[in-house]
Amino acid sequence: MRKTVIRWLGWLAWCLPAAAQVPLPVMPWPERVEVRPGSLAIDASLSIGLFGAGAADPRVQEAARRTLARLARQTGLPIVPREAGSASNATLRIVVEQRDHRPPQRLGDDERYSLEASNAGLRLSADTPLGALRGLETLLQLIQQSSVNAPTPGFSVPFVEIRDEPRFPWRGLSLDVSRHFIPADGIKRTIDGLAAVKLNVLHWHLSDDQGFRVESKKYPRLHQFGSEGQYYTQAEIRDVVAYARARGVRVVPEFDIPGHASSWLPGYPSLGSRPGPFRVVRERGDPPGLIDPTKESTYRFLDAFLGEMAKLFPDEYFHIGGDEVNPREWSSEPRILAFIKRQRLGDARGLQAYFNRRLEQILARHGKRMVGWDEVVHPDLPKSVVIQSWRGEKSLAEAARAGYRGILSAGYYLDLMQPASQHYMVDPLKGETAALEADERKRILGGEAAMWEELATAENLDAKLWPRLAAIAERFWSPESVTDVASMYDRLEITNHWLEWLGLTPRSNLRRMRQRLAGTMPAAALDAFASVLEPVKGYERHRNGYGASMALNRLVDAIPPESDSAREFAKAVEGYLAAPNAARADALRQQLAAWLESAQQVRPVLEKNSLLTENLPLDDALVMLCRAGTEALSFQADPPPADWKPRTLAAVQDATKHYASLMIAIAPPVQKLVDAVP
Amino acid sequence: MRKTVIRWLGWLAWCLPAAAQVPLPVMPWPERVEVRPGSLAIDASLSIGLFGAGAADPRVQEAARRTLARLARQTGLPIVPREAGSASNATLRIVVEQRDHRPPQRLGDDERYSLEASNAGLRLSADTPLGALRGLETLLQLIQQSSVNAPTPGFSVPFVEIRDEPRFPWRGLSLDVSRHFIPADGIKRTIDGLAAVKLNVLHWHLSDDQGFRVESKKYPRLHQFGSEGQYYTQAEIRDVVAYARARGVRVVPEFDIPGHASSWLPGYPSLGSRPGPFRVVRERGDPPGLIDPTKESTYRFLDAFLGEMAKLFPDEYFHIGGDEVNPREWSSEPRILAFIKRQRLGDARGLQAYFNRRLEQILARHGKRMVGWDEVVHPDLPKSVVIQSWRGEKSLAEAARAGYRGILSAGYYLDLMQPASQHYMVDPLKGETAALEADERKRILGGEAAMWEELATAENLDAKLWPRLAAIAERFWSPESVTDVASMYDRLEITNHWLEWLGLTPRSNLRRMRQRLAGTMPAAALDAFASVLEPVKGYERHRNGYGASMALNRLVDAIPPESDSAREFAKAVEGYLAAPNAARADALRQQLAAWLESAQQVRPVLEKNSLLTENLPLDDALVMLCRAGTEALSFQADPPPADWKPRTLAAVQDATKHYASLMIAIAPPVQKLVDAVP
Repeated sequence: MRKTVIRWLGWLAWCLPAAAQVPLPVMPWPERVEVRPGSLAIDASLSIGLFGAGAADPRVQEAARRTLARLARQTGLPIVPREAGSASNATLRIVVEQRDHRPPQRLGDDERYSLEASNAGLRLSADTPLGALRGLETLLQLIQQSSVNAPTPGFSVPFVEIRDEPRFPWRGLSLDVSRHFIPADGIKRTIDGLAAVKLNVLHWHLSDDQGFRVESKKYPRLHQFGSEGQYYTQAEIRDVVAYARARGVRVVPEFDIPGHASSWLPGYPSLGSRPGPFRVVRERGDPPGLIDPTKESTYRFLDAFLGEMAKLFPDEYFHIGGDEVNPREWSSEPRILAFIKRQRLGDARGLQAYFNRRLEQILARHGKRMVGWDEVVHPDLPKSVVIQSWRGEKSLAEAARAGYRGILSAGYYLDLMQPASQHYMVDPLKGETAALEADERKRILGGEAAMWEELATAENLDAKLWPRLAAIAERFWSPESVTDVASMYDRLEITNHWLEWLGLTPRSNLRRMRQRLAGTMPAAALDAFASVLEPVKGYERHRNGYGASMALNRLVDAIPPESDSAREFAKAVEGYLAAPNAARADALRQQLAAWLESAQQVRPVLEKNSLLTENLPLDDALVMLCRAGTEALSFQADPPPADWKPRTLAAVQDATKHYASLMIAIAPPVQKLVDAVP
Repeated sequence: MRKTVIRWLGWLAWCLPAAAQVPLPVMPWPERVEVRPGSLAIDASLSIGLFGAGAADPRVQEAARRTLARLARQTGLPIVPREAGSASNATLRIVVEQRDHRPPQRLGDDERYSLEASNAGLRLSADTPLGALRGLETLLQLIQQSSVNAPTPGFSVPFVEIRDEPRFPWRGLSLDVSRHFIPADGIKRTIDGLAAVKLNVLHWHLSDDQGFRVESKKYPRLHQFGSEGQYYTQAEIRDVVAYARARGVRVVPEFDIPGHASSWLPGYPSLGSRPGPFRVVRERGDPPGLIDPTKESTYRFLDAFLGEMAKLFPDEYFHIGGDEVNPREWSSEPRILAFIKRQRLGDARGLQAYFNRRLEQILARHGKRMVGWDEVVHPDLPKSVVIQSWRGEKSLAEAARAGYRGILSAGYYLDLMQPASQHYMVDPLKGETAALEADERKRILGGEAAMWEELATAENLDAKLWPRLAAIAERFWSPESVTDVASMYDRLEITNHWLEWLGLTPRSNLRRMRQRLAGTMPAAALDAFASVLEPVKGYERHRNGYGASMALNRLVDAIPPESDSAREFAKAVEGYLAAPNAARADALRQQLAAWLESAQQVRPVLEKNSLLTENLPLDDALVMLCRAGTEALSFQADPPPADWKPRTLAAVQDATKHYASLMIAIAPPVQKLVDAVP
C-alpha cells in the first residue's frame, strides 16, 4: 500500500529539463531524469541480484562484483565483495535481457539502460550487458551522503527514474604514448575513467616519430630499436584489451604511417624513403624519413606486421594515422618521382592515396576497417574508411558529403590547456556539419578528445586529462540541449572527487608534485599560490623546445590546466561590475587579501628551492595584481589620482604575460576592475 | 689533485653529534654521519655500477633497478630504468663484498654499510647484499632539491660520509590482519615502508578470534569457515614473502593458540575444549572456546598444519601467540581438570606450559624456533624460545634473567593513538632491563611495534602506522643517544612526504576520507577543523564497542593519531608563558583567530552531512576555546572581571572531554593560558 502512495507522489515530482538545475552529481547527464522526494539508504547489507539471460554474462557478473568493491571504497562501508546471487530480495536488482555472444564490442552496440531507485529498492534494466555497465556507473555516481534528517547517518540514493542512451556511438579518447610512454597501469586507470564517464573508445596512438611502443614478434627490431625499452609486451596489450572490454571500452590501435613513422626506421632502415641510418627522435623538430610507398617490399612488411597486430587488437577498426606527410621527403627522391610519374599518381598527395588504398586492401584482408586522419580523404579511397578530423568541422563536413563516416577531434585537444568550457561548447554537429543533409549527418559518428604527450608524463597525465575529459564525454553522450556551463563546472568538481575514489589522481598527484617542489618546507603556501596560476595555452610552451630528456617537474607541470578559483573570481568581478554593492566589493576585497597573503607566504618557499626560483617574477606580479585590484575597489566612489589608472593598467597589462610557461589567471579580471575605475 | 683538496677540506668539516642538529632528513639517524661542504648534482644521467662478488646477487641487482625507478618518481627526472652495468665511471658505485648464498635471511645478519657522496661521485660499500639494501634507502633520503646557488636547478646529494649499522638485530612490526583484513597489496606497501626505515621483521598476526587469514590446503575449513572469504592464498603468501626478502625484511608468521583461536573452531569444532558449534567472532567480547590441549588429535592436527605453514614461511622463527588464555575455559571442563591432575600439571597455567612444550617440539621437528608472548614463559619451556613482551620491561627483564631472548612491544602499541614522542622515549634497554648483566642484556634482541586492527582498516592503516612507526624504527636502529624529540618530529614530517613517493598514503588517504565526509562541499574547512583534533587515546573508543560490521568512516577515522599543529601551538604557549612578550602573544592570537575562522567555516559542512553532525559539539567547544585563549592573552596585563577565570576554566575543562571519540588537542594549552591569567 505504502509503495503505491509513493509511486503516485512520484508523478507529482518535478521532471528536470536536462542539466539546468543539477540536483544530481551525474556526469554525463542522462537522456531523461525524473527525481522524486525521498531516498533509499545504502548500507553494508547491500546485495545484488542478477536476472535475465544476461545474468550469465561474465561481463555482468564481474561488473556486479566490481560495483560492490567500488561502493565499499566510495563509502567506507564494510561491504565484503560477495558472489552475486540471484536472490529476488536483493537490494539492487539487475535485469539484463540478452547475453552478449559476440566477442568484440562493435560500433553502435546498444548501450541503453534504465535505472530506478524507489522504496522497493534499486532496479537497473538493460537489453545488453553493455547497457548494464553504463547503468552501474550512473548508480555509483548517485550514491551520496544521506540528508541529515535520515533516520541513521550514512549513504543513500535519491528516489529517481532514469532512462538513458548515448547521442553518438563513437565516443573516444585518442591517447599518444609515443612522445612520453604511459605504462600499462596508467592505461588501465585511464580506461576506468573512460568507462566511468561512458566513453567507449580508447584510440591508442602507439607509434610516432618519438617511439614505437608495441612488441612485434614478426619484426622485433621495431620495439627493440624504436622504444628505448619502453613498450608494451603483447601480454600487456592483451591484458589491457580484456580490461577495456570488461568495462565496455573498445580499443582502436593506431600505427601512424607513412609520416610520423621515423621510429620504425632504426630497426628497419629499408622501409625508409631515403637512405639511413636513422635514430629515434628525442627532441623537437621535423624528423627525416617517411615510409617508402614505392617498394613492394614495404607492402609485404606491412601485410605481415598489420596481420600480426590485427590479431592482437580484436576491434573491427584500425587506425593508420596518415597525417602531416611532408611531400618534399618524397619529391626530393628521383626514384620516387619516377614512380609517381610511372603510376600516373600526379604528385606526393596522389602517392599517399595510392599507399592508403593498398593499406586499406591489406587491412580488409585482415578483417579490419580503416580509420585515418583528414589527409587520407581522396577520390580513390573507398567510402568504408572512417575519417578522424583534426582540422575541424569544415573538413569533417566535406568528408561526410563525400560519403565518408567521420569523428571530430578538432576542438577537443586536451594538451592545449584550454578550459573545459571551451571544449564543452564544441559540438560534432555544429558549424559546417550542422548544415549537412540528414543522411550525411548520420555519417558523423561522434568524436574523440585527443591527448598528445609532448609535455605530459605518466605522473601528471590524470590531471591533464581530467576532469576536462568528463565535460567532453558529456558532449558526446548527453542530449544536444545539455549546455549549461555553470552546471557542468559544478558537476566537474564532484567528478574530481569520485575519480580519486576510482584510483585516478587528477588532484592528488599534483599535490604530491608541489610538495616535491616545496622540498622540506610545507606545501600549503605553494598550493595557494599555484591555485591562481594556469599553464600557457596552445603551442606556446612547445615553442621553447621539448623532448624526451626534459624533466617535467616544474611548477607548470604541477598545476591543473584551469584555475577554478580564478574562474570563480572572474564571475564575481562580473557580478560586481554589473551591479556594484558593498557586499560584493567586500567579498572581492577579502579574496584579494587572501591571495596577497599567500603571495607573501610563498616567497621563502620560492627563494629556497632551486626548481621554484624561476617563479619569483610571477609572485611579484601577483602581489601587484592583488594591490591593484584592492585599490581599484576603493576608487569606485572617489576618483584616483590622475596618474593612477594609466600606470596601474600598464602594470596589470604586463602581468597578463607569462613567465616560466605560467600565467596568472586572475590578471584579466583584475584588469577589468582597474578598467572600470572612472 | 682537486679530489685531494676536497678530501682534506673534508676533515675540517663538522662531525655531527647524533641527530642533535639535523641538517639531513634521514630517518633513522645513522650511527655516524660526517657532512662536508658541497653537494653532488643528481640528474637523469645517473647510472649505477655494481662491483664485488655481491654484484651478481639478484637482490642487489633488483634493488639497483628499483632505486632508479624510485628516483625517477621522487624527482620527476626522466630516468629510464636501465640494466645495472659495471661501468667504472658510473655515478653511483655499489661495492658488495659477498654474495648471499643462504636463502632465508637470518636474525643477526650483517646489515652494515658505508656511504660516501663526494666530488668523485656516490659510493656505497657493504659486506653483504643486506647492507647494500639498507644503504640505498639512506641514499634515497639524502637526495633533495639543490641549493639555489647550484649551477642548474634540480636535485643533489650533500657531500657526506656515513657509516651505519643497527643497534638491535630484531626490529619489527607486529601487524594484526585478523580483526580487519589487510589485502596483500596493503601488506606489500607496508613492507616498502618497513624497508625504508630499516625495520627488518614483519610479524604477521594471521589468526585471531575474528578471523583465520591463510589458505590451508591440509585443513581448508580453517580459511573457508574462519575468514568470511577474506584470506591470503598460498600464492599470495609466497609472493609477499619473496617481496619482503627482496627488501631485506623477514616474515615471521603468528598463529595465536591456544587462546585467541576461536576462528579455528567453526571449521574444526573437535579442536575446541568445549562442545561446539562455534562461529567467527564479529563483535567485541570474550569469545568462547580454546584449543583443547588434552587430546592427542590436537597435536596430530597441529603437527600437520604447522608443517604445512613451516614450508610456506621460510623464516627460522615461528610465533605461536600464547597470550591471554582464560583459565576458566579449561578449568570448567571436568575432563580437562582430570587431565591436569593425571599429568600433574598443577593448574591451567601448567597445562598451557605442557601445550607449549609440545608445540615447541613440533616446531623444532619442522626446523623452526618458537616465539611467544610473555605468558609462555615457564620453567618447563626450553630457553631457545624467544619472548615477545606486551607486558613491559619488567616482564622482559625477568625472561632475560631466566635465560630467554626477548623483544619488547610494550610501549609500542600504535593502535592506542599515542604521540610519536611517547613511543620514541621507550627503550628496550631502559627501566628494568637497564639493570641486567651484560650477558643478559645481549638477550634483548630488539623490539616490535604493534598494530591491532579493531579500529583500523586497509583504508586508514597507513595513517595509523605512519609516520610514528619511523620514530620507533629509529629507536631500534640508531645509537641509544639519539633522543632529540624536536629533531625527530622535524624528520618525521619529511618522512611523511617520501612515504607518499614510495606509494604509501599516510596523509593522502585521510584527505580523501575527509572529502568523502564533506560530500559535495569543499573539504578545506573540514581539513582545517580536523587539524586540531585527535582520536581518544588508549582503549576508550574500544569500550564503546567495535566489530567487523562497523563502518570506520567517521571523522575520527579520517585524522592522524597526533595533531602536528596542536603540538606546535602547545610549544608556542610554553614559550610564551616562560617569557611573555608582544610578538609571542601576537603569534598565538593569530593562530587562535585562524582556528576560530575555520571553526565557523566548517559549521555548514558539519550541519549538512549526516556523518558529520555528531561533531557539532566539538565545533562549539573549539569556538569557545579560541575565544577563551584570546581573552586570556588580553588579560595578561589587566586582570579580568572576578568571575571570568573560574567560569572560563570550567568551560575549558569541559572542552578537554571527548565527543564522537574525538578530542580537541589544543584544549590543554588553552587551559594553561587561562590558568596563567592572574
